[in-house]
Amino acid sequence: MNGLGIHLLLELKECNPKLLNDLEFIRQALKDTANDVGATVVGESFHRFSPQGVTGILAIAESHISIHTWPELEYAAADIFACGSTFRPKEAAEILVAKLESRSPEIIEVQRGMTLQAIIG
Amino acid sequence: MNGLGIHLLLELKECNPKLLNDLEFIRQALKDTANDVGATVVGESFHRFSPQGVTGILAIAESHISIHTWPELEYAAADIFACGSTFRPKEAAEILVAKLESRSPEIIEVQRGMTLQAIIG
Repeated sequence: MNGLGIHLLLELKECNPKLLNDLEFIRQALKDTANDVGATVVGESFHRFSPQGVTGILAIAESHISIHTWPELEYAAADIFACGSTFRPKEAAEILVAKLESRSPEIIEVQRGMTLQAIIG
Repeated sequence: MNGLGIHLLLELKECNPKLLNDLEFIRQALKDTANDVGATVVGESFHRFSPQGVTGILAIAESHISIHTWPELEYAAADIFACGSTFRPKEAAEILVAKLESRSPEIIEVQRGMTLQAIIG
């Protein structure tokens, strides 16, 4: 079963909390992840919140990678949306898990645009 | 059951295809949706692709709204991530459905950071 895109929701638990609060680390981690899997980055938006936490979003050609971090809970909610064969989302997920040193990751996979793929497939 | 955040995945089928290919319309639609539900926008990234299609992402305080459009299929894949009570994601979803004139929307709801909420709740 294939849809127009794969959407992975990453529940990244038991991460290294120092990394989760480091805006520049998060920015570089997402960019390196995108580059490592052959994704073409077209835009970005990164923000650090007070007293803690980072939001980061990379816009990729018709796709995206986003992350929201809770350093105080050693937790990050990330998602990776990949349409077609633009890049390899599961490989990107594995890289991100490793970079954030998550010892208890869970990945939810959702196929997007399913019936539409049937129309054009 | 409450987690740290609610993540809505919007399968927006049978939209108005002209709207889906209009970068400025998509930008304004997302921004108006965010404003209407009391979300604080902290960043944005919007892109139009050739020959068609738009990607748009709004970074909101510890949350986001994203959209990827396929005008040729009258389809858009959107997602709305809202943590805590920063804004009302289901109301945002309804507004976005109406703005894009989707006649066949499906909304998938995923609770994020569930066990963590149990720890701090």
